[in-house]
Formats: sequence, C-alpha cells, structure tokens
Amino acid sequence: MRDVAIIGVGQTAVGEHWDRSLGDLANEAIAGARQDAGVERLDALFVGNMLSGELAGQENLATHLADAAGLLPIEAVKIEAACASGGAALRAAYLAVASGAHDFALALGVEKMTDFLTDGVTSALALAADADYEAAHGVTFAALNALLMRRYMHEHKARHEDFAPFSVNAHRNAALNPRAFYRQPITVDDFVRSPIVADPINILDSAGICDGAAALLVCPAAEARRARRPPVRITGSACATDTLGLAARRDPLVWQAVADSARLACEQAHLKPKDVDVLEPHDAFTIVSVLTLEACGFADRGSALKLAAEGRIALDGDLPICTLGGLKGRGHPVGASGAYQLVETVQQLRGEAGAAQVKGAAAGMAQSVGGSGSVAVTHILQV
Amino acid sequence: MRDVAIIGVGQTAVGEHWDRSLGDLANEAIAGARQDAGVERLDALFVGNMLSGELAGQENLATHLADAAGLLPIEAVKIEAACASGGAALRAAYLAVASGAHDFALALGVEKMTDFLTDGVTSALALAADADYEAAHGVTFAALNALLMRRYMHEHKARHEDFAPFSVNAHRNAALNPRAFYRQPITVDDFVRSPIVADPINILDSAGICDGAAALLVCPAAEARRARRPPVRITGSACATDTLGLAARRDPLVWQAVADSARLACEQAHLKPKDVDVLEPHDAFTIVSVLTLEACGFADRGSALKLAAEGRIALDGDLPICTLGGLKGRGHPVGASGAYQLVETVQQLRGEAGAAQVKGAAAGMAQSVGGSGSVAVTHILQV
Repeated sequence: MRDVAIIGVGQTAVGEHWDRSLGDLANEAIAGARQDAGVERLDALFVGNMLSGELAGQENLATHLADAAGLLPIEAVKIEAACASGGAALRAAYLAVASGAHDFALALGVEKMTDFLTDGVTSALALAADADYEAAHGVTFAALNALLMRRYMHEHKARHEDFAPFSVNAHRNAALNPRAFYRQPITVDDFVRSPIVADPINILDSAGICDGAAALLVCPAAEARRARRPPVRITGSACATDTLGLAARRDPLVWQAVADSARLACEQAHLKPKDVDVLEPHDAFTIVSVLTLEACGFADRGSALKLAAEGRIALDGDLPICTLGGLKGRGHPVGASGAYQLVETVQQLRGEAGAAQVKGAAAGMAQSVGGSGSVAVTHILQV
Repeated sequence: MRDVAIIGVGQTAVGEHWDRSLGDLANEAIAGARQDAGVERLDALFVGNMLSGELAGQENLATHLADAAGLLPIEAVKIEAACASGGAALRAAYLAVASGAHDFALALGVEKMTDFLTDGVTSALALAADADYEAAHGVTFAALNALLMRRYMHEHKARHEDFAPFSVNAHRNAALNPRAFYRQPITVDDFVRSPIVADPINILDSAGICDGAAALLVCPAAEARRARRPPVRITGSACATDTLGLAARRDPLVWQAVADSARLACEQAHLKPKDVDVLEPHDAFTIVSVLTLEACGFADRGSALKLAAEGRIALDGDLPICTLGGLKGRGHPVGASGAYQLVETVQQLRGEAGAAQVKGAAAGMAQSVGGSGSVAVTHILQV
C-alpha cells in the first residue's frame, strides 16, 4: 500500500450561489486545487455528492463535472454516503492512489441546495434517514437530532444553553474565514433567544442550507515533493457504519460508527486522540459535536459540554474544533462539507489558516458523518 | 498493486419484484455470493445503484443495505455512474483490495424500477443525460439512441431489420438462463413487427424496466485458493468518460469512452480483443451493441451488423455476446446490470453457464456504459 499525500486544495466561498451551477462551483474548486498543486497531470475524479439527482435533476454527475472541467477522458465516478459523501470521496481517491491504479486523483465535494424551496431541501435531506421507519412518518433530520439532544439533556441533567459554546465557537471561528457562510460572531444570549426548529433544537444549533464545492488533489507521497506546496500526508483513513434508523440502536447516545471509524483511522496513523491538534467534527447540530467528542474518546461520556464550557475547543484551547467555522459557521453544503473539513485541516497543517491558525498544528482529524450517525468517514492528516 | 480475484457470486432472478424491497433483493444476492465463496469474513460493501433516491426515497443506500444484511459496522458506500454503476462498484471493490486496505470486499449492483409509473422511470433514467441540454427538452434515452441509430442507418446504408440479430441472439440466450426476465425466443419477424418506442427504435431494440440485484465477492488472488469455487482473476479494470451530451461529440458514432476503457483494460490484462472468448456489451438498445463492437475493435467501423448477421455473436460463434441474455433478454435493472454482466462472465469462465455455456471460455470482457456512452467501465476476467 503506497503512502498518499494531499498536494493541492481548492474551494469556493460557501453561500447561496443563485447564479452558479454545480459545474461552475466544481470548476472553481478543481481549478484551485490543480493550481495550488502546480501539477498538470490528473488521472481520476471522485465526486462526493448527495443530492444532485433530487435537487438538480442530474445523475451521472461525475461525468458531467469531468466534462465541464475539461478533464475527459479520465475516470470519474460519484460516491454517495449521505452527508459523509465528501469524506468518502477523499477515501476513494486515497484507495485509488494507494493501490497504484492512479498517480494523481482528485477528490471533489460539491452540493447545490439553494434554487429550491426549503421544504424541498428538508425532504431531500430526509433521504439519508430510514425511508420506511423514519422519513415516511415525516421525521426530519432536525427532529431526529432533537430526540438525541433531549435524551442527552435528560441523561446528563444538561440545559439547552449548555450547548451554546459549540455554536459560539463555530461562529467566532467562521468570522476569521473569508469563505465562510455565516461570518457574524454570536453570543450565548443570541443562542438562547434563537427560534426553535424542532424542540429543543433551534436555528443556532443547526448548520444552514447553502452551496459550495471543495477539492483535494492527492498523489503518492513519494511524488509529492514535486508539488508547489508542502505535502500533507494521509496517515489514517477509515469508514464504518451503524444502523440506518435511530430506533434500532441499543443506546442512541453512543455513536458507534463515529467511534469505529475514528479508532481505525487512529490505529492506522499510530496516534491517539490526545495527539490530534485540530479536529473537524461533523457539527451539523450542536448535539452531533457532543456525541462525536464522546464517541471518539476526546471526552468521557457526559463530559463534552464541560470541555466546551471550559473553552478547550477554542483556537487557543487544547482541542480546537471547527477551526474555520465548522458546518455551523462555514456552512453545510451536505455532500461538499466533508471536503471542506479536509481542505481546512490542510490549511491548518500548512500554517495557512490566517487569523484562525492553530499554532504548531501537526496532526488533524476530519470526520464526516451521514444520517443520524449511521455512516462515518474519518481521516487523519499529518505534516 | 495486489492481484485480485472473484471468489463468490450471487444474484436474484431479474423481474418485476412487486413484493420485494431493495433490501430484500440485496440480501439475496449478498448471501448468495458469500455462500458461493464459503468465506465468513467481509470488510467492505460497495453498492452500485443509480436511482434509489429518486425511485425508492432512500439515499445513504449502502448503509441501509449493510444494515439490512447484518454486515455492520463494515465500510459501505454507494457508487453512482448512471447505468455503469454496477461495473463501477466492482472497480471500487477491486481498488480497495488491490490497495491492501481491505482483504474481502463485496461489490453489489441493485436497482428497483417497478412500483413506479413508466413515465416516472423514464424521467428518472433521463437524469443520466445532460440536464440542461438534453433532459430539459424532453429527450428520453430511447430518443437519444434513436438519433444514433438513425444516423448509423444513414451513414452505413443499413435497414432497421439489420439490427434484429442482436435482439434475436439476446432472447435466444436468455431462454437458457433461469434468472432472465424475458425467456421467450423471438424471430426476425417479431422484431420487425414490434411497436415503435422512438423511431426507429422499437420495443425489441430496447432492454426492459425491471428489478434485481447481483453481487461479487473479491479478495487478493493469493488468498483466493481458500475459496470453495475456482477463483476468477480480474486482470483488467478501467473507467473512462466522454462528453455528457451527444451534441458535443465530434462524431456521435464513435463511442470514445467505451473505446478508451476497453483499450486500458486490455492493456492491463496484456490481451487483445481477439483473445476475448465471451463479451458482455451494454446492450440497452441494439445500436449500443453495434457501436460497442466497433469502438472496442471487435468490428471495423460499419461492419458490426455484418458480424451479427453471420452468426458470429451466437454461443457457437467466434465472439459470443450477451451469453445469458444480455440487458435485452436477462433484463436491465440499471444500477445492477453491470454486476449481472460480471456475474454471468464468472459463470462462463467457471464453466457453470449451463445450456448457455461457451466451450473453453477462458477470458471474458464485461462492459457497463452510462448515459449515451458518456462513461464506461470495462473489466477483463480470466481463469
């Protein structure tokens, strides 16, 4: 198995891109990653996307994007793992290069969620839940996460406002990221007064609906020295699954796929959670950050809220998370989010995160989660 | 790069499975492949599927199927490359095992197209065409292939009935396959009298709408000797792309992605088209078989109809195609078809094709095509 490194990254600003197509967004991210790497050759394109069929009327998406970007006749396929699609696309590119089948492969995450009514997007997102036992009954993802949050609050005697530090942290960091969707800092008071989406989840617990594309160019580590920028090695890569529906779990507050994929990636990288300098959790809702920190071993069960309250998740804490805004602040274009998390981890490890730079960041973990923790893809990146 | 072999195959009968879900179909194919291999261990599931989001309201499909089959917590992702998804799923499993990341990986193709109105399925299939320049104008895949067929007839002075041998061959072979959808042989006269779908394409030019699942279990060739059945080596695997829309092609009768993927797979396997003993082309329409034979070098330009007329594509010919019925006779559950083609190629190479057995078959080529030849995945299998 060949060692693999990331040699180029590109991304669009996250936002409501009313005047731009999936192809436009993809082109900007792809061109950015190729220019960043300074390498002409490209052998394959792996596209992470969840909803192009439902929302843009376009399947065969990877072919479309390879065509739009002038990359024909290279290999191109789409990878779908719900909201974990972006992470899964990097894993596909990683496997293709590790195998020796390709030398230069591009992982792209892209999603376009605007141009559609909100209830259309909410229904489309519910395709990642169990069609027969969840979505058919009208349960949205906000509602599923509300069930988890209420249960967590009950088990650990927590108040809703105890979750505020996650949202405050994400927005504070997003304000430092010129490509983030929500660049305004918020206060605990803003969080508490925010309108309810699905009790107890409110607007400021939730990542927003938006558009974007992010891309990573990978190649064998041995070839990476030719690149323009310092290579970032992929030292751990893993994917794991859990039950599709929440009701089938023995304990819904234990996110086993998240735990398994993090453990496998750490084992491959020969490091422990405490060795991680920056963490990008899948903070689609504040409760997801909490369950992730506890599943991965960054916090004991029931103690993640305390960790956040103590400021340890801030840029100057011992476990900085959502360093460029996370899904909450940067935005969550679902199939693209995993790629954004990875691009931002590369920015941190290269020392290119600007005002959001975490000093001395040498090892980062980025984790994409699909459904209600039903699939998770974890990568460890190191310089 | 490790050598990879197929050690187990499974499949459902192809048909209108009104009483069965995607999960039911997948379970039967997965259990069949595992039992065939006689190996307990399984590390990953790669699902080829095109339309589960549109037609079954279920994305996050690979997680759902891993869950339904009791395979948690293994890696599971869905691969979408339109009608080439089944072939792309085997390629993903192949790369995962070749890389060393996994030892036992399952490639599954699954699609459920019934339970829906025909016009709903036709619209869903059009998601593989160019959304802006083709589908938005109401052009269906039958119509796109009709344009190609009409052009071919014009350039090569061919009559519509000259395409009959492809359909007659597929139906004749399907009659020998107990899992095929259309098991009745047809005559040239039946073909000529068949109702028009999109002039000049008629019903008997066209593969039918149906349901099914097929699976292949792969492992390192070095481990394959433990398996119950004789291993079949994957000696060539390649994917290539062409323009999404037909109008952008310099010459629409040259299917370049089909040609490129076949050439790359043959180069990897160190063989030439003439060394192929059985061929599974993507015969969604008779014109596709014609363009495939010419693109891959099995026939000179304009001569594929003659090759068929001479009976060379029959089971006792020098280039048997669609040996267990092809998409036309066995049926074309779109995201599953590529997996069926590969399973049937394994049956031929193992000498387990029953009444449809091609004597001495030692090398087979299976090719999945998505869109109007816009993406192609070719595999060479050998014993």
